[in-house]
Parts: sequence; C-alpha cells; structure tokens
Amino acid sequence: MLINTPETVVADALRGMAAAHPDLDVDVTARIVVRRDARSGGRVGVVSGGGSGHEPLHAGFVGHGMLSAACAGEVFTSPVPDQMLKAATAVDAGRGVLFVVKNYTGDVLNFDMAAELAEDEGLRIEQVLVDDDVAVADSLYTAGRRGTGATLFVEKIAGAAAEEGAPLERVSALARQVVESSRSFGVALAPCTTPAKGTPTFELPAGELELGVGIHGEPGRERRPMMTSREIAEAAVAAVLDDLAQSGPAAGPVLALVNGMGATPLLELYGFHAEVARILAERDVPVARALVGNYVTSLDMAGCSVSLCRVDDELLRLWDAPVQTAALRWGR
Amino acid sequence: MLINTPETVVADALRGMAAAHPDLDVDVTARIVVRRDARSGGRVGVVSGGGSGHEPLHAGFVGHGMLSAACAGEVFTSPVPDQMLKAATAVDAGRGVLFVVKNYTGDVLNFDMAAELAEDEGLRIEQVLVDDDVAVADSLYTAGRRGTGATLFVEKIAGAAAEEGAPLERVSALARQVVESSRSFGVALAPCTTPAKGTPTFELPAGELELGVGIHGEPGRERRPMMTSREIAEAAVAAVLDDLAQSGPAAGPVLALVNGMGATPLLELYGFHAEVARILAERDVPVARALVGNYVTSLDMAGCSVSLCRVDDELLRLWDAPVQTAALRWGR
Repeated sequence: MLINTPETVVADALRGMAAAHPDLDVDVTARIVVRRDARSGGRVGVVSGGGSGHEPLHAGFVGHGMLSAACAGEVFTSPVPDQMLKAATAVDAGRGVLFVVKNYTGDVLNFDMAAELAEDEGLRIEQVLVDDDVAVADSLYTAGRRGTGATLFVEKIAGAAAEEGAPLERVSALARQVVESSRSFGVALAPCTTPAKGTPTFELPAGELELGVGIHGEPGRERRPMMTSREIAEAAVAAVLDDLAQSGPAAGPVLALVNGMGATPLLELYGFHAEVARILAERDVPVARALVGNYVTSLDMAGCSVSLCRVDDELLRLWDAPVQTAALRWGR
Repeated sequence: MLINTPETVVADALRGMAAAHPDLDVDVTARIVVRRDARSGGRVGVVSGGGSGHEPLHAGFVGHGMLSAACAGEVFTSPVPDQMLKAATAVDAGRGVLFVVKNYTGDVLNFDMAAELAEDEGLRIEQVLVDDDVAVADSLYTAGRRGTGATLFVEKIAGAAAEEGAPLERVSALARQVVESSRSFGVALAPCTTPAKGTPTFELPAGELELGVGIHGEPGRERRPMMTSREIAEAAVAAVLDDLAQSGPAAGPVLALVNGMGATPLLELYGFHAEVARILAERDVPVARALVGNYVTSLDMAGCSVSLCRVDDELLRLWDAPVQTAALRWGR
C-alpha cells in the first residue's frame, strides 16, 4: 500500500486534498472539507460524509453545484456527530442544511445525533437517507438497504437545486425523489484490503465473483464462477430494473452510472458500459446521460456497480447544471 | 477481469465510449476516436495514440482544447499507420496536424510511416516525441527514455494552443517546450495483468516495490522492500528534480501530476500528493497547479508516478485554458 502508517492514512489524504485544491477549506484535524464560498451565496447547505475508502466520494464532490461540505471518518467507519455539527455550522447561511446519509447503522445514528445537536443550536436540518442497493435487504453494516452509487445522483441534484437558491424543503424533496428513483447493484471480482488490516477483508478466490457485493465487501446475493462482462451486465441491469419496476418509477429515461470499485481498469469499465447500454436499449430504456469511472469506490476492490436513476425533465436539468468539484466537473 | 474475451477488449471499450460520449465520433472498426467538430474550427489537428491499457490516455483526452483524435492499439501494442493516417485525414482542416508520440519503438516507427503517408497525400505533419521518464535510458520497449505521464501535459498544452488558432509551427514548438520542461518517475507496488496473458506481466512479490517502473511494467532502477509513501515521494521527486536540474529548466513553478497506475486507491494518491507537495515546498519549487488521479494508467497495476513540468506564464495560461474531454474538464 502507498501509505505512511495505517493510523495516518485519512489525515495524509486530507493534507493532499488541501495541497491540490486551494478552493477547498480542509480542516485536517476535524476531518471536514468545506467549500470556501459555502456561506457567501445565501444557499441551503448540503452536507454529506461517511467512512473513508470510497474516494472521490464524498470530499471529491465538494464545490460549486454539489456538496457544501463533507466529513471523513476512518476507513470504512462513520464520522462522528461533532464533525457533522461543525460542517453544518460552517456552511449554514440561515437557510438550513440537508444531510445526505448513506444507509449504514453508524452513519444513521451519528447524523441523527448531529441533527439534534445542530437543531439545539438553532439550525434547520433535513436528512435524506440513501438506500439504493437492491442486492440484499439487510447486511453486516446495515438495517435495510445499503447506500451506494446513487449517492452521487443525490448529491449532484440536491447540490444543483441548492446552488440555484431553492429552499430547504425543495432541496430535500428533490433529494428524496432521486432516492426513490434510483437503484444500484454491485459486483466484486477481487476483494479490497484496508490499511489497518493489511490483508483482504473477505475471501474471494481467483476465478470467482460476488454478485451483489456491498461497498465494504459485504456479502451479496451469490458467489459464482467468473462470468463475462456481458453476463454480469445482464444480471446487474436486470436486478436494478426489476426492482425499479416493483417500487420505483417504471418508465422514463435514466441517468446511468457505471462505477468502478477501484482496481478495475477504465478500459474494462467502458467495455462493461457498452453491454449496459446495449441491454438498456433492448429493454427500451432511454439513457439520458451516462457516466463511466471510479466515483464510489471500495479502496482497491476489483469490480463495478451499475446505478440507474429515472429522471423527469427537472431532475435532468439539475443533473446537467454546472458543477465544479475535484472529481466531477462540467458546464461552467 | 471484467471482459468478454481478450480479443474483444479494445472494441468493447470503444463501443462503450461511443455510448457514453455522443460528442465523440468513435470508429470501432478503425479504432479511432475523433472529436465530432474536429474540422469545423479551422484549427491545427492534434493527434495521438498508443497501445490500449493506459486509459483515460489517449481517447479520454479527445475534445475541446485537447486532442482532435486518438488511435487505439491492442493492449500495450502500438496502433498501425493506417489508423494514424485515417485520424490525420479526419481532423485536417488544411492547417496541418501534430502527432504526439510516446517514445516506444513501435509507436515511433508507425507514426513515422503514417507521417510519410499523410505527407504523400498533401498533409503537413509535425511530430513531437515524449520521453519524460527519467528512470532508465533504454528499456524493453524503447530506445531512449520512455514516454509516460508528461504526455498529458503535452496533449493539454498543444491542444489549447491549437484551440486558440495557433499555426502548426507554434503548436509544435510549444509541445517540444513541454517535453523539454517535463520529467516523470514511476513506482509499482503490484504488477498488472493483461487480458491476453491473464496472469501478471512481471513478478513483484508482496512486500516489494519497483522503483522507476515503466507503464507496461518494464523494469526500473531498483527492486526494494516496501517503502512508506513519504520515502517513495522523496525518491521520485529527487529523481525528477535532479534530472531537470541537469538538462531542463532549473527554476520556475511546476505543474505537478500525481498519477495512479490503476489500482491504487485515490485515498492513497492524495496522501502521496501531500508528501510530494511538502517536498517541493521544502526545495522551494512552487507548485502552480496540481492534478491527482488516474490519468496514464497501466491496467490494474498498483503504484503511481510523479510528473513535473516547469512552466512559464504562457504554458501556465495554456494549461488553464478551457478543456472539455471525457477525462479532463475545466473552465468552460
């Protein structure tokens, strides 16, 4: 691993972000990354955070048109309420703050506590819970579905609405609409290794894959002998579309995210996207926009996930709105 | 691996690029990616290409303000002259075309042949050879120094000049200035696996690293027991600065690229950048701009490289100019 010590990995990365991105306010001690102009626009704040190891999520999405601030926990460990409170206070311009929370037990508890603390200080707080992963109902880290790739959709669209000056109720409602309209499914081809452990966090023999894996390597639906890119895409897209048909919007164009887990080459991710796009076309699902790359990662896990979000004209307009962050940039 | 068959990896990826990026003209059969508006602006063409497996290089850099077209070879194998000729013809607007060539024997021969063919057809062609890797003088694939991370600097700055309407002589001269002002040094922590071979392309036992590795896993200067991020940064930055002091511009601010080889988490790359930035500050080398991420990769190799380019005001202005490609976007 390219590290100094397991204990300093998160602080070292934050020092690096501070050095690389002078437009971000990085508090290495408190482990929060704040957009430097967070309070100047009189906007609703959009704050997220979670365990480290999923970069660029979340700190890589702080900036114009997306997050106001992000809190970094230890690797695969929730940040603490004090961080979230500090972030909320740093970005609040009097119009309230939305917390975007991936559905993991620790994150949910800590963001809840932070919301109480912030409200005690007079801030208005709304929360949106992202639980897009259709693979399993409960898991090692979660009661209910896990929050994964759709977090990017929520942060982008809520951030765009906040940038335009929408009030807290509207930003929150849009974020919830994105959650209701989004589903994801992930696959691991090789496990990840945390700095603290130094060995793979789960067993996955060469030549096998885990269908429905979580972003911490939690078990999915099924362990299988290696499948082709085409077969994996069929399984993932079917899982996502079947679930959307049952409980989400059943029609309309989609945003498609083909997301790398960390160690799968971009060459392979694009090849996988070709299969995803073909399957969606065969099923008459128009792809309004596609994004291919490493956005919600699991350290050095090999594999990928597919996230789809059914969009109406308003969600698509907000998706297309300008964004300027370390990891996502367009239109400005 | 996330593939269908080793034989279809490159074509599959190109189909995926076509699906994801409607602003690109992707010829899957000829394996060239062309900016859709390449000829409409009356600009000098900037064409590059090389073996696949280094994505987003080169096709991910095709677009406004950077490459006009890219040619994709098989994995780690040069494209052929017919591809380069076709790309040059597709982008030529009568003002000539610059070939950006990484210094590998196959690429050099094939681009030379393509230049002859293109000149026979009446095109004006200039070539710039990128040979930024200070690790070794000759290698398995190269006579002279290898071309690696600085290719991004060359393609960005030459592309920006072309976008502004600069003539071929000026675009070429700027590209050569970037080459003369840039140096790189790479480190492998784990080897890469090509789809065709299916097993690691070189031996690198766990707990060891290769200092000075090439982007195909070619041997570097030294095999060592694992070092800390800080120690690796010291070795890499020293190698680059020492070489620049001997044969390049010895003073002035730099563009700094901390580039992931593919499988090293972004969390670790940012931590590594913190060390690079600290060392440069200690040596009184101002960092004008920094870029951290996976840009010139080696499939799923773990490791990173450091590239520095000494810039004057004009190079920095061109670096900052708007760019809109799949993998690099800002300022527009």
